[in-house]
Amino acid sequence: MIKAGIVGGTGYTGVELLRLMATHPGAEVVKITSRSEAGMPVADLYPNLRGHYDLAFSEPSVDELASCDVVFFATPHGVAMRMAPELLERGVRVVDLSADFRISDLDVWAKWYGMPHESAVWAERAVYGLPEVARDAIRDALLVANPGCYPTAVQLGFLPLLENGLVSTGHLVADAKSGASGAGRQGSVGMLHGEIGESFKAYGASGHRHLPEIRQGLQAAAAGKVGITFVPHLVPMIRGIEATLYAELNDPADFERLQSLYEDRYRNEPFVDVMPFGSHPETRSVKGENTCRMALHRQEDSSIVIVTSVIDNLVKGAAGQAIQNMNIMFRLDERAGLNAPALLP
Amino acid sequence: MIKAGIVGGTGYTGVELLRLMATHPGAEVVKITSRSEAGMPVADLYPNLRGHYDLAFSEPSVDELASCDVVFFATPHGVAMRMAPELLERGVRVVDLSADFRISDLDVWAKWYGMPHESAVWAERAVYGLPEVARDAIRDALLVANPGCYPTAVQLGFLPLLENGLVSTGHLVADAKSGASGAGRQGSVGMLHGEIGESFKAYGASGHRHLPEIRQGLQAAAAGKVGITFVPHLVPMIRGIEATLYAELNDPADFERLQSLYEDRYRNEPFVDVMPFGSHPETRSVKGENTCRMALHRQEDSSIVIVTSVIDNLVKGAAGQAIQNMNIMFRLDERAGLNAPALLP
Amino acid sequence: MIKAGIVGGTGYTGVELLRLMATHPGAEVVKITSRSEAGMPVADLYPNLRGHYDLAFSEPSVDELASCDVVFFATPHGVAMRMAPELLERGVRVVDLSADFRISDLDVWAKWYGMPHESAVWAERAVYGLPEVARDAIRDALLVANPGCYPTAVQLGFLPLLENGLVSTGHLVADAKSGASGAGRQGSVGMLHGEIGESFKAYGASGHRHLPEIRQGLQAAAAGKVGITFVPHLVPMIRGIEATLYAELNDPADFERLQSLYEDRYRNEPFVDVMPFGSHPETRSVKGENTCRMALHRQEDSSIVIVTSVIDNLVKGAAGQAIQNMNIMFRLDERAGLNAPALLP
Amino acid sequence: MIKAGIVGGTGYTGVELLRLMATHPGAEVVKITSRSEAGMPVADLYPNLRGHYDLAFSEPSVDELASCDVVFFATPHGVAMRMAPELLERGVRVVDLSADFRISDLDVWAKWYGMPHESAVWAERAVYGLPEVARDAIRDALLVANPGCYPTAVQLGFLPLLENGLVSTGHLVADAKSGASGAGRQGSVGMLHGEIGESFKAYGASGHRHLPEIRQGLQAAAAGKVGITFVPHLVPMIRGIEATLYAELNDPADFERLQSLYEDRYRNEPFVDVMPFGSHPETRSVKGENTCRMALHRQEDSSIVIVTSVIDNLVKGAAGQAIQNMNIMFRLDERAGLNAPALLP
Repeated sequence: MIKAGIVGGTGYTGVELLRLMATHPGAEVVKITSRSEAGMPVADLYPNLRGHYDLAFSEPSVDELASCDVVFFATPHGVAMRMAPELLERGVRVVDLSADFRISDLDVWAKWYGMPHESAVWAERAVYGLPEVARDAIRDALLVANPGCYPTAVQLGFLPLLENGLVSTGHLVADAKSGASGAGRQGSVGMLHGEIGESFKAYGASGHRHLPEIRQGLQAAAAGKVGITFVPHLVPMIRGIEATLYAELNDPADFERLQSLYEDRYRNEPFVDVMPFGSHPETRSVKGENTCRMALHRQEDSSIVIVTSVIDNLVKGAAGQAIQNMNIMFRLDERAGLNAPALLP
Repeated sequence: MIKAGIVGGTGYTGVELLRLMATHPGAEVVKITSRSEAGMPVADLYPNLRGHYDLAFSEPSVDELASCDVVFFATPHGVAMRMAPELLERGVRVVDLSADFRISDLDVWAKWYGMPHESAVWAERAVYGLPEVARDAIRDALLVANPGCYPTAVQLGFLPLLENGLVSTGHLVADAKSGASGAGRQGSVGMLHGEIGESFKAYGASGHRHLPEIRQGLQAAAAGKVGITFVPHLVPMIRGIEATLYAELNDPADFERLQSLYEDRYRNEPFVDVMPFGSHPETRSVKGENTCRMALHRQEDSSIVIVTSVIDNLVKGAAGQAIQNMNIMFRLDERAGLNAPALLP
Repeated sequence: MIKAGIVGGTGYTGVELLRLMATHPGAEVVKITSRSEAGMPVADLYPNLRGHYDLAFSEPSVDELASCDVVFFATPHGVAMRMAPELLERGVRVVDLSADFRISDLDVWAKWYGMPHESAVWAERAVYGLPEVARDAIRDALLVANPGCYPTAVQLGFLPLLENGLVSTGHLVADAKSGASGAGRQGSVGMLHGEIGESFKAYGASGHRHLPEIRQGLQAAAAGKVGITFVPHLVPMIRGIEATLYAELNDPADFERLQSLYEDRYRNEPFVDVMPFGSHPETRSVKGENTCRMALHRQEDSSIVIVTSVIDNLVKGAAGQAIQNMNIMFRLDERAGLNAPALLP
Repeated sequence: MIKAGIVGGTGYTGVELLRLMATHPGAEVVKITSRSEAGMPVADLYPNLRGHYDLAFSEPSVDELASCDVVFFATPHGVAMRMAPELLERGVRVVDLSADFRISDLDVWAKWYGMPHESAVWAERAVYGLPEVARDAIRDALLVANPGCYPTAVQLGFLPLLENGLVSTGHLVADAKSGASGAGRQGSVGMLHGEIGESFKAYGASGHRHLPEIRQGLQAAAAGKVGITFVPHLVPMIRGIEATLYAELNDPADFERLQSLYEDRYRNEPFVDVMPFGSHPETRSVKGENTCRMALHRQEDSSIVIVTSVIDNLVKGAAGQAIQNMNIMFRLDERAGLNAPALLP
């Protein structure tokens, strides 16, 4: 049984890790830390865990976490880059769900996250944990940088186009929408039900932290420079991300083979589902599940390929993908703990 | 491996049975019927089942269903009472999620359901499937009448009071609230998002079909006549029932021992959770889970005991309880297939 | 043109006063204060006011407010009792939307609000502003204590029964449900969309501050002691309160005349609408409107009368009723500014 | 007092016309027809109209409608083109809220709406009723084709760019999102709360009826051919449309003057509000109001201009714009009946 620890477990990502790990056949959470809630049973904070966990939050302590096989960081940015190195040096493998190790260019990281990066060494050694791109590297990684939620939905949707050089890379558009849990469990006025219920808006339209992460991934896939406009929006629901992606085919004749190209690309991926051409994936179809579901579309006489891609931001966009990465790292069945269908309706 | 069939699988109860059975270690769905959708893969109707089921809907046929060990009826009332007897006579055990066999007084049944009952013989032999009351009878039952959603939340909340004769039984009040999935998946104007979103109302305040079922259960527990006022309400959410119950203690001194009485009553029940006195159970704490979670309250100087009780109407209120009953009937672990924590947030 | 000021205008009650006053033909808001947002245009905080108001928040100052004809307090409890007296002494009339002057027994007030009352003199002179009960007194009041949201819905629903001595007053039950705006615009974790969306729960079941206010009003109507159990619940919507009320008729024969009794009681009330017997008022039918809409119900063979009553908690439960009171106090048409139908859907 | 009639008043557009007209100072609804609900008081169908209207639905009859000054068609497509001509010939002016007269190329119309057009004569005479473009023509029009909801939000957002030839017109993108009321009040399974609550999806991604209408308007503004990709999405809320628009500036230096260009273009428009550069308009800021609110954005080093534009689909996207058009046609104050601020929260 793999022993897992969680640092910073009071947020939505933390409770989602606990929910999914509760039924994992080959791993268990033995330690969860929270400075603010130390001593409190996790089931007191999250009543859905009553009867599933006896565990209580404890003070963050490297010594105690060092007994784990793997530690998940579900912390705000800036924490993992300070705390993970010591764990790594003591042989604990780390999956960081924060943004600390996602961006390889540390100047870019510093600019978007407003602080200098403090662990260039481990940033260099970290593997960006998108299994559909880097499964082999993840297998042997000591430190996995778990991708952001929007970047997961956007990259998986664009990858086949860019890897095959089929589209003009100058002006990609990613119009993305997320439920409110993406903003975390912070008591801000702006995320009150009274503020975001029955309303819809864009936010971060002039620049969002996930933009450089998306661009980095797309450029790697395209093996060249990519121009991408990314606008996130807030949907009055709790879970789910939908990304509608627009790109211009270099040769409209390629529309003929797009569907099979996507199906081939993801045929062996346990967590990517390509629907029939022209389908409309719904976020509810992946609620609670680790799947990225997508479909392709074309409008009459147009050279624009449209991809619609959905994930659960807390699962494939965070905790589920982290467990998928753990499964890969520890040679467990990649689907272990991630088998249950989405909750629909 | 127990082989299960589902009759009438296109509604919310049907897809929920499929969702829960997908990870059941000791049973599998081998047959699902729908007259209207025969031939369609279940995953085409319910995209959350893509990758989990190859099964397609088939025409209802007793001959084909007869090869199952157990058949779930997820049909409108009036179907099971006509179709189940033939299956039962061929040795197939039945869990009926409709109302056909819930009411033992068939005149009462006929009045509330607007048609004569057509199977007095099996109505007599049916066991009302509330495991917390009738586990032993369920174990050997050929035909289990799975309780209604409101009746489950209301009965479990009142039982310890009535079984111990602690309250005045003349004027119980059950003020209950349900999410929209309780109305099923019918295309009626009244259940449109545009009609019920951002609104709240009572319905059926002059009399609802679950009233006689509730009364029957409470009277059995009280071993006497019970006066109960039951008003259901519609909440702008999808899943969840909350029931707030009011009863007058015969002796206010009994407030001292109520909490331990409830805890003792349900200590060994795998799916009833009594929270600390004065807690407020939330429906989201059981979303997707088979638990009934409850708490007790007292207002200053009052002899009224207040019980708040929550379930997921599609799980403990329907499909989950049906699987719990199947587990009991087939000597499986009662928790099999029902182990995952609720989806929160 | 009546000149109105608002103290504490950054909350939901404040913006609702501004919304309704924007089209009031006989009164206008000339002053709005907020210590935290002084200097900010109200339309920057509330974009729905863009194009409707040039007004900015200013520091609270009795001198400046003294030029108003009337001042609305939309403040947390404890503010009006300290600040209103000075305004009143300078001849400004006050409508206090907070709880400071609602409870005449100041010991009770102190116990529920956790501080001693600081203005016994004005508490004595304040008129409880439920126009359907105290229109004449309101007309001449210097200080009106605007009723709470739950107390408005509950009192209006029970009044005809109590005024006519038709029900047993020992064990009334008021099961009430409110949208999230009732909790105000405070950045607490518990009111995040991620916490309360898709969920339902009771809260304050062991005692809520509106209980003594409700009891006081009901006892006045009954001219005697009233036992009332009041349980509030949180609905995943923004606006709206529904109260389902239960009382036992002393003489079930009175069911015959209840409907006409209610219709007569409220016939001349511009903001109370009695629907046909057995109707189910929806909160959306009063969204944005100052109406309390109600209906009566009876279950078969029962002596329990059920009343369902709905209001918009921010309108008839707060800002709208405050404007209604202002209209009465200044001999304006009682419906002025309150004429628009509810927003449905 | 202008006398108005409504044909097909049982849908959301019909009730919204009634809501807004209830407080219109210069016009009143004297006739409303519905074949299915003839005889029923409008307030029985829509309880928010109780106390505001005595009117009942009547059978559609040209003779009776002919006494109106203006008739609104709130009907499915295909009705107005058959019924409006006779009214027009009898001197009644018509505002058609359906799609019948929006597309000038009747072959295009026939293709998208699946039937031949039956009134080429009046299609030719109809004025497309976007006041910000065609106010003068509307003033004298006998027949106004009220724009669609998406086309209103998209056109108003793009207009200044296209009228001034600032962007590449080959590959515009309009990613639009709508609340559920846009689908009308039809009892379809797909629009149940249980189906669309807590979910988000694109629909019509391969081609939606509003595409040719949008293209026609943009081409008129650009005075040339325009390539536009338009993808609508369904948001789990009732009212509101947000459109995020993407276009490439021919000369990125033009970013300097975009804000003032937009402000100048709409300075005198009573129902268009340009927010400061980089703002994020929310749909709730226009809920119930006739305003289109928009803002401009630029991402670092990008030549793509982003416009976010919001309307209430039932007001500026339907009934409100229809009343605005009526006001223009009858020389009333253009804001008459449309003065109230949006309902927020």
